[in-house]
This record gives sequence, structure tokens and C-alpha cells, in this order.
Amino acid sequence: MIIVLKPNTTKEQLILLKTALEERFAVTVNTWTGVESTVLGLIGDTTAVDEDWVHAQEVVEKVRRVQEPYKKANRKFHPDNTVLTFPGGQTIGDGSFCLMAGPCSVESEEQICSIAAQVKEAGASFLRGGAFKPRTSPYSFQGLKGEGLDLLKAARRATGLPIVTEIMSASHIDMFENVDIIQVGARNMQNFELLKQLGKIRKPILLKRGLANTIEEWIMSAEYIMAGGNDQVILCERGIRTFETATRNTFDLSAIPVVKKLSHLPVIADPSHATGKAGLVPSMAMAALAAGADGLMIEVHNDPVHALSDGAQSLTPKQFAELAGRLQALKRAYDEIMAR
Amino acid sequence: MIIVLKPNTTKEQLILLKTALEERFAVTVNTWTGVESTVLGLIGDTTAVDEDWVHAQEVVEKVRRVQEPYKKANRKFHPDNTVLTFPGGQTIGDGSFCLMAGPCSVESEEQICSIAAQVKEAGASFLRGGAFKPRTSPYSFQGLKGEGLDLLKAARRATGLPIVTEIMSASHIDMFENVDIIQVGARNMQNFELLKQLGKIRKPILLKRGLANTIEEWIMSAEYIMAGGNDQVILCERGIRTFETATRNTFDLSAIPVVKKLSHLPVIADPSHATGKAGLVPSMAMAALAAGADGLMIEVHNDPVHALSDGAQSLTPKQFAELAGRLQALKRAYDEIMAR
Amino acid sequence: MIIVLKPNTTKEQLILLKTALEERFAVTVNTWTGVESTVLGLIGDTTAVDEDWVHAQEVVEKVRRVQEPYKKANRKFHPDNTVLTFPGGQTIGDGSFCLMAGPCSVESEEQICSIAAQVKEAGASFLRGGAFKPRTSPYSFQGLKGEGLDLLKAARRATGLPIVTEIMSASHIDMFENVDIIQVGARNMQNFELLKQLGKIRKPILLKRGLANTIEEWIMSAEYIMAGGNDQVILCERGIRTFETATRNTFDLSAIPVVKKLSHLPVIADPSHATGKAGLVPSMAMAALAAGADGLMIEVHNDPVHALSDGAQSLTPKQFAELAGRLQALKRAYDEIMAR
Amino acid sequence: MIIVLKPNTTKEQLILLKTALEERFAVTVNTWTGVESTVLGLIGDTTAVDEDWVHAQEVVEKVRRVQEPYKKANRKFHPDNTVLTFPGGQTIGDGSFCLMAGPCSVESEEQICSIAAQVKEAGASFLRGGAFKPRTSPYSFQGLKGEGLDLLKAARRATGLPIVTEIMSASHIDMFENVDIIQVGARNMQNFELLKQLGKIRKPILLKRGLANTIEEWIMSAEYIMAGGNDQVILCERGIRTFETATRNTFDLSAIPVVKKLSHLPVIADPSHATGKAGLVPSMAMAALAAGADGLMIEVHNDPVHALSDGAQSLTPKQFAELAGRLQALKRAYDEIMAR
Repeated sequence: MIIVLKPNTTKEQLILLKTALEERFAVTVNTWTGVESTVLGLIGDTTAVDEDWVHAQEVVEKVRRVQEPYKKANRKFHPDNTVLTFPGGQTIGDGSFCLMAGPCSVESEEQICSIAAQVKEAGASFLRGGAFKPRTSPYSFQGLKGEGLDLLKAARRATGLPIVTEIMSASHIDMFENVDIIQVGARNMQNFELLKQLGKIRKPILLKRGLANTIEEWIMSAEYIMAGGNDQVILCERGIRTFETATRNTFDLSAIPVVKKLSHLPVIADPSHATGKAGLVPSMAMAALAAGADGLMIEVHNDPVHALSDGAQSLTPKQFAELAGRLQALKRAYDEIMAR
Repeated sequence: MIIVLKPNTTKEQLILLKTALEERFAVTVNTWTGVESTVLGLIGDTTAVDEDWVHAQEVVEKVRRVQEPYKKANRKFHPDNTVLTFPGGQTIGDGSFCLMAGPCSVESEEQICSIAAQVKEAGASFLRGGAFKPRTSPYSFQGLKGEGLDLLKAARRATGLPIVTEIMSASHIDMFENVDIIQVGARNMQNFELLKQLGKIRKPILLKRGLANTIEEWIMSAEYIMAGGNDQVILCERGIRTFETATRNTFDLSAIPVVKKLSHLPVIADPSHATGKAGLVPSMAMAALAAGADGLMIEVHNDPVHALSDGAQSLTPKQFAELAGRLQALKRAYDEIMAR
Repeated sequence: MIIVLKPNTTKEQLILLKTALEERFAVTVNTWTGVESTVLGLIGDTTAVDEDWVHAQEVVEKVRRVQEPYKKANRKFHPDNTVLTFPGGQTIGDGSFCLMAGPCSVESEEQICSIAAQVKEAGASFLRGGAFKPRTSPYSFQGLKGEGLDLLKAARRATGLPIVTEIMSASHIDMFENVDIIQVGARNMQNFELLKQLGKIRKPILLKRGLANTIEEWIMSAEYIMAGGNDQVILCERGIRTFETATRNTFDLSAIPVVKKLSHLPVIADPSHATGKAGLVPSMAMAALAAGADGLMIEVHNDPVHALSDGAQSLTPKQFAELAGRLQALKRAYDEIMAR
Repeated sequence: MIIVLKPNTTKEQLILLKTALEERFAVTVNTWTGVESTVLGLIGDTTAVDEDWVHAQEVVEKVRRVQEPYKKANRKFHPDNTVLTFPGGQTIGDGSFCLMAGPCSVESEEQICSIAAQVKEAGASFLRGGAFKPRTSPYSFQGLKGEGLDLLKAARRATGLPIVTEIMSASHIDMFENVDIIQVGARNMQNFELLKQLGKIRKPILLKRGLANTIEEWIMSAEYIMAGGNDQVILCERGIRTFETATRNTFDLSAIPVVKKLSHLPVIADPSHATGKAGLVPSMAMAALAAGADGLMIEVHNDPVHALSDGAQSLTPKQFAELAGRLQALKRAYDEIMAR
């Protein structure tokens, strides 16, 4: 961390600040005095240095981090990719490409089992489906809740696919004990109390990026979970909010190679929520693969026009099967091209 | 709600859709057939019509709401301003201008009692202070939690000022029973489980606008609380996230007159979090008053350079006293000017 | 276009508005009267209907376009892809994948001729290079201007590659007579005087998307050029401005399939400016291809560390050759996969 | 400027870079070697140091400016406010509050003279009106052009009000010789060729902020004009583009105190374009005054519903007169309050 002091800082003030920094944050402080300004350089583990505190010091003009503010999620301290493995042999993060597919909302046993069978047949290795649904309006369908979780488990028994579903409150954690991957939605990415509780369990967490969150904040939220001892975190890019209205959100595919460089955690993408339009899902799914994603989460509904939520962005099982075939072929070509 | 159908919609499809809409949402549907396209107009209470469902229908090209999707927070159905009154005689929303002031974090009894006394002396009518602190980094100070709530109550006993403090999890609601106004932070504005629980209690909720949330979504979150039966909601504008980096966020002061027109709820502003810089707080506080806000929330710290969080944006008690005096004089002038 | 009237509109006001619309814009107006509000539907060519005028009418509550506000660039009226062909046999928009490569700024004859030869060897079919440079600071290098254009032509003579270079003022058009593709930069996307002048010539225009412009505004700027009679427009996505700072801009790859659906114009992508970092260019180039782009514009510099502008985002010729080989292989695989 | 080097930089590389920096940019370079990284500090006038060049050096990890990249517009080097005075006694920037009012477009002599007389009567000291109109659609009204300029001059003769009007191309400068203040619109804020030409004349330039431009870029565009020798620049905040759709743009009022601190140039605000809605103009005008603006630009039209452009955001002369009266009263109160 580099701290630029104000031009008129006195020698006494400088010594006071240096001492305060060393005592408070257990770092070593080097001083470099220029003609117009003095710069401090902090050496040691600056992860825990509180930037707000530094900013508030009267003699401080600017503060710049050189090191990232996260440690457990940082590739510098953990060069190898984090790989998640599941009892059924599924893997994430080992260079394979996983497909998580299923409906936005679980609606009935017939619906979820039928979709599960179809997406498995097409090549999906995980079943996604919402039981607890975050909805902007209190008057919209809020999900089948506990019953939805039971139906997901029924679909898992029928197909063997591990299940991924969203949690909306720390008070529900017990209900999620038998879920294979717990999803944290975009709106809860900075629900820090929830993140802390998820850090205490030992189960993969799929952490979606918040609509207005930077990549650094997203990794910091993963760090929250990991700081609690749970290091099985999968990041999922699902679009950020911008001025453009042609798509529901703006799919930030650059985030994939950026995260890959900064962190060892697997990163997947969700073209369904990112674009909000079924017609755009296939091309953006192909693009996400070519950008280096570890997998995709895609909404599939047997009857999108009667879906209880987000039907406009769902593929039919038939559309999904066509796309999955193309993705598999593209992945083979991609691996061969990159291996040359 | 206006629904534009695709050009090639058949008569059968039109009838099917019309029937589905009427049965599902209890509305009346009028049909207007043009040369190139057919338009449906929904009549009745469209608040509960699920836009996603409509969008997903195969024959639907566009959907446009004419009515707002909220009812309880809507000025159309509740023309009079919502006014909150407190045992000590404080009011919000009745045309007066309230000042909520205090530190970002409660740090010690001496600190909070001293600041409380000073901001009261300067004219504040509410004491703010954080006990549970949402921090981007798991390694930053997270607040004194329950102990912080106790210290706030001690400061209330000493000064008589009602207290405002942030809740971060529905599981903490019992601890907040004696708090006068419960604050929902920007990062939890769409933590719908928390909003639902806050709808069940009977206590004023101060709902901050999310960093990436539209005014409509913000009012919809108020609607969540009100739908549960708690109609004491105060909205608080605190800046949105944009590309500009000269300020921490972009203070959207236009939101104040926009909300005033759409809703009967009181709306205050927080120039401290919106700008992130103490030097900008006074001018933006004056501006918020002139924009028509019902009050302000301002960070005040006796010793900003040693504050455990957000010191850079805190005023000293002396700076606050000067600003409060100016705001009171400006409010008198403003009321007189507007009454002419 | 659908116009929703205010609830209290009188019959006289309705007739006045209907007449005004029909006379002013030569459209037919249908009226649909609901219980709570009246809706007008405009039939005919609404491209020239001035939305601002309609909005300003006292009785108008909302205005919604059903048709796009552009005609010449609209795929509905021109279903076949626009294909550009060049004397040397190069094509854009016919399903092939073009590579435009070269330095941000032309610096010397040796530099540009050497880079041209190398990118041609690697597979590029167009040479890009800046002679007039838009720079944020008046103190930064502003390009070699006329001399730069001459050097580009020298490189064209040496390699046969058509040249692409940016124009910054309508007053320079004569100097660009021998340029093969004239580029309009992001900052000039809504320099309407320039667009009008470019509509008068008969030469391909590469129109970059503005940093804060919607896809619709971008196509409208193409429409400006086409309205003047020049229908050879290539669109180029190069990132939009958002809150994210890990990349220079946010690369909006979804814009590629969106534009492909709305317009018949070719669309290419510029991963160099979109990301601002050479290390991200290869993966985002692959992603843009898989998203369906007609080609790429990539910055290549023989000596990025001594480049006079934008060196941080330039590939070396060697890096470019590796990427170009991968892109060609990916394009073959992609075409085969999509043809199944 | 602070430059952080990569950890593995060799001593030879460091010396090469230091020498290159000193020779190329005429600065002195100090070196501070820490345990993990080496930091260079540039001393002297770093305004002309090309950040892109520095970034591109292989051993450079991060670059941070300590000084602003502008000089002539910088308050540090020019502490006193720039004050503009006009032959009729009008002033801008001296602590007074100027009102520029008039229609979006000049439409006829009768229209402009009538509005001019009315806004003068209400207290405006400048007449604004568009002759050349930047419109998103090529099919919308583009202004009366030269004839519009003549009509503005007729209105000036009739009322004595100096005129403010927008230029859209450097090739029109001769036509603007008799204009009192030349406006550069938001879409041309980075039309650098136009800025350079405006730097060569000696006439006040009103520079609107671009929709997607940071405050720093905005001041850099002022620096372009000033670098040419024309130091009469007025900045005008008119809203930036964000995700919010309730207003046309997001009015960034914080920009006013930020600019006041960084620069000595006067800064005014345009609530009409910022909000896009006449009903929001009065409250945001009051807010801009209280935020410290040097004046306002407000759209006034005698007949907003028949305006040829932007009618929805125009006040009637009567509404403007009421607002102007309130602003004058607020300004008196404000000055008195701030002087205590």
C-alpha cells in the first residue's frame, strides 16, 4: 500500500502516522521523501489494513493498494486451480466444462423430474432449480420453498444429477443440508451475515456477482466465505447493470479471464439472466466458453410460456439439447486449439 | 398494462391469451386491432400481473406498464403524506426537516454519549450509529454488535434522542426491539427475507436505496414491508453507482422530487455516504434540503481521524454545528419562499 | 407507436391531438378507449414521428415505440446481410471472419511497413493505424496526421492490405479520399455534422459505438450516414463505460447478436480498446468470434513498450500470429458446428 | 506521479526506465526501494507525462497520478475564480447567480423575441436558443441553422440580452463571430478538433459535460480550449448516463462543489436536460443553487406542447417567472447564511 501525504505535513505528523500504522496493522512503513510530497510504503500483510481509516488521517492525500485486499481467494498465494469433485464423478474447475441446467422455479414433481431427465440426456451434469425465489414484487410468485427443495431431491434420486439451488436467508441453512451446491443470488452477494454463516459449513457455494459490484468486491465476498473455513466457492458472472436496455443486464464476459488471473476459484457464467432473452442465450453461451469459463448455468423449461417466473429467458429442452451438442463440440475444438 | 402482440398472431392465439390473462390475474382485457399489430389493454388492478409471465407468452412482442406496480406506497391511492411521530415529539414527513446525526460506528460509551450530546445541542433530533457494520472486507471492523446497541440506548437515556441503527439479518430482529428506527442498508435493499420480517413488526423502517437500484425497485422494496402490514417506511437516498470516481457514489438528488410525486412516504438523504468526502457534505446537505428532502442523515465523529470506519466522510461536531445552523436558516428561508 | 393519454383528457383534446398527429407526421391514428385511460395507436411509417414532440403534448402520459426508429439500417426492411467487397478480394459481412490489425498510432514508415508485413503474414486482411489521434489530454501525442496517412498508403503499396484509419473532422474528408475504410471513433459517434458529411461520400465507414451509447443510438448514427446515401457501414463494438475498473471499458459482447437481429449491417469487435489490456485480448477475441462477430480489430505493435499511444493494450506481432492462427482454427470449427 | 514496478525488475531495467522517463518528459525521478517492490516518484511538471506510455513499459505494474493532469484549468496554479464580464454588465463567476433561459430551438422571430422579452422581465440575464440542433434521429428537426443565428441576434437587439447558442462543427466558427457565448454540447465534449479551433478564438465557451465523461475528462476538455489560449471557459453540468430511467439523465450535483475545488472556472447547471421533465426543473434548480452553482441554464418555451424539440422539459414563461423569483430570494438568503 502506497500512501501519499499532503504537501504541508510536518515531521511530527509523519512520525505519528508511521507509528500508528505500524502498531495498528503490524506492518513495516518505509518513507520516501520527494521535493513536493512524501510517500509512505507499507510492507508486510496489508490485507487487513483498513483503507477507510488511512483515508481519514488528516495528513493523507491519497491511498493506493499495490496488493489485492484478499488472501485466501488470491491466486498469488494459491497458484493451483481449485477443483471441486462430487460423489457422482462430476467436477468443476479441472479444465472440464460443466453444464448446470433447469428451470428458474421448481413448479411440480412432474415438471422438475421431466426437465431433469431431459437436460441430463442432453449432457447437463447438474440440475438447477429455484425453490426460494427473490422477486422484485411482493405480489409475484415466491417459490415453493421447502416443498421445492423436496421436489429437487426427488429429481436427483431419479436422475443422479447433483442439485444447485438458491438460499435467501441464513435461517434456512438447515433446510439446505442435502443440497449439493448452495447458490447465493446477485442481490445477496453482499449479505455479509449470510456469507459468514455459509463460511461455517462445508459445502460448495455458487456465488453470483451482484448487479453493481466490481470484480474485486465479488472476490471479497468469496473471501468472506473462505475466511470462515469453507474454501469451496464457485463464482458465477450473470451480468451487471448499465444504461443499456436491449438486454436485461450487460454480460461482462471479460470478468472471466480477469477472475482467472486474480483467483484460483472456478468461474462459470449464466447467459440466461445476463441477457434475459432466450434468443440470445446460444450465442452468449458459445462466447462464454470461448472466453474460458469453467461452465455455464442455463435456464431450461419444458413450457416456457407457462413458466411461473422468467419464462422469457428459458430454452426448451429441445433448444437446450441442440445448444449442449454445439457446446460440447466447441469445447473439444477449443481444447485442441489451445493445446497446440 | 399495454401488451403489443406479434404481427402474425392468429385469432385463436389472441383468444387463448385474453382468457389466460383474465383468469390468472382477474383483470379485464380490451383488444384494439390495428393494421399491423394488435394491442391488448388490461383494466383493473394490474399490480399483481406478473410481467415475466406475460413476456414469456409466444405471441407477445412488448409489454408496457401504465400503472405503477406498487399500491400501498403509491401516492395515487394515498394522497396525503405519511407522517411519523415519536414519543419525544419528533416528526418526519410533516413538512419539518429532521437531522439524524452520529458516528458511522458506535465505538465506546464515552464516544457515543459525547457525540449524542453535541449533535443534540447543534439541533439534531435523532441519533444514528452503527452497531452491526456491513464491510466489504471480512478483515475490517464489523461493529460492536449487541454491545453497540446497548451503548446507543445509553446515549438515548442521556440525551432523549431516538436512535437509528442498521439491521443486517432477520435473525437479529429481537435485539432491535427497543430501537426507534431500524435501518436497512443499501446492500440489503433487496434482501427480501429481511424485508418480509420487517413487515411483520410495527416500528419505523429507514430503507436506504441500493447502489444499483432504480427508484421503482426502491419503492417496490418499501411495498414489501408495507405489504406485511408495517406502513412506517422512510426512504433514504444515499447515492448510486456510476462510472464517476471523484465521489464515492453519485448522489441522485432528482430522486427526491421523483419519489415525492410517486409516493406518500417521507424521503431523506445521506450526503455522507453519497459523496464519501467530508468536504462535500455541507454543500450537498444544503442542496438536498432545497431539493425538497424531509431531512438528512449525516455522519459526525468527535475524532474522524481515529474513527473505526468511514472517518473520511465524517464531520466533527463543530463542523456539524455550523452546518446545522445553516440548514435551519435555509429551511426557514425555503419555507417562506415556497409559501409565497 | 402507442400513446397513452392522461385519465382526464377531454374528447376535444383527444380530437385535437389525433388531428395534429395525422397532419404533422402523415400517419393514421386509431383510438382505443378503456375504462381508465385512452390509448392511441399510430399506423404507417412512424420513423419520422418526433417522440419529443409527442411527449410534450399536455394530455400525453406515456409514449412507446413499437417499431424501431430506423429504416435503412433495419433488417426488417432489408433482410439480407450487407456485404462489403474490396478490390483485393477482401470481404466483410458474407460469413467470413476479417482481421484488421495494426498499431494504435502510425509512427514511422519503417514501423508501419514492418507491422503491415507481419500482420499480413499472420492472416490479417486489413491494416489499421491511427494518423489523427483523439487524446484526452492536449499535451499527449496527437498523431502524425497527413504524414501518417501517407505512411499508411506506403504500407498498403508494400503489402496490398486495404487501410482503415480514423477521421476526426469533416474538414479532413478530402485527405481521406484514398483511404479504404474511414473509421469514426467512439467519441465522435454522435458528431452528427461529421456523420452527415460521411453520408455524402461513397466509401465504407467503420462506426465505433460510443462509450455511453445504447445499441439503438448506435444504429441511429449508422442511419445518419445511410440517410445521406452511403450504405456501406460497418459497426464496431469497443466497450461501454460502466462502474467496473478492472478493464478499461466493459466489452458488451451481447451487442453482437442483438445488432445481428436488428440490422443487416456487419458488426465487428475491438477487444484491444474494450479491455485496455493485452493479456485479455486473446480470450476476448475468441469470445467475440463465438458470439458471431464478422471480424475483429486488434492493436499490434512491434514494440509495445515504446508505442506513442495505447501500448499497454497492443499485442506483439508474434502474439498476434499465435492468436490469428487460433482464431482461424476456431472459425473453421465454429462454421462446421453451426452448419450441422 | 507514482510508478510501482513489478517485483522481479532488475537493476538494469530500473536504470533504463529512469533514464527514459527523465529524457522523454523532463522530470526528475526518485527511487524508493522496498522489500517487495520498488516505487518511482516523478518530480516536476508531470502534466505532459503520457500515462499510456508509462503503463506499456514491461516492468511497470501500476501508475498513479498525484497531481491532476491539467494545469491552466487547475485551481492550484490559479487560486482566484475566473470571472467573465459582458458589455451589458452581466457577469459570471464573481459570486453572482446568472440565469440563461430560452427555448431549446429557435423557431421564428416572433417566438424568440417574445420569449426573450419575457425571460428578461423575469430576471434572466442571458438568452439561450438552439440554431444548430444535435438530434439522435436524422429524420428529426435539425434547427434553423444560419437563419436561427440571425433570429437570436434580432432578439438580442430587442432585449439587450447576450446570446448563448450551440456550435456543432469547427467549420461553422465564422458564423458564430457575433455570438456572445458559444456552447459545446455534451455529445461534442470530446470532439477534440472542435475544441482546438475554439481555443484559437477569444470568446466565452460554455462547455457541457459529456454523458459518460468523468469530471476529470471534462476539465481536460476545458484544458484543450485553454491550451490554445482561450481562457474564458464556463463548465455546465447537465446530467450523466446511468441505469436510472425515471429521469432522462442523472443530475450529478456533487460535480459542482468538486469542480469548484479543483478548478477556478465558473460552473453552472442545466436542470432541463438533466431531468428531461419540466415538473422536476424547479426543485432541481433550487438544489443546484444551494450546491453552489454560479448559475443555471433553463429551457423556456411560450408553447411547450408545440415546441419543435424538447418540449417536455420546457417551462412556460409564467412558470419560469415564478421560479426565477424564488431563485432570487433563495440566492439572497443563501448569501446571507454563508456570510455569517
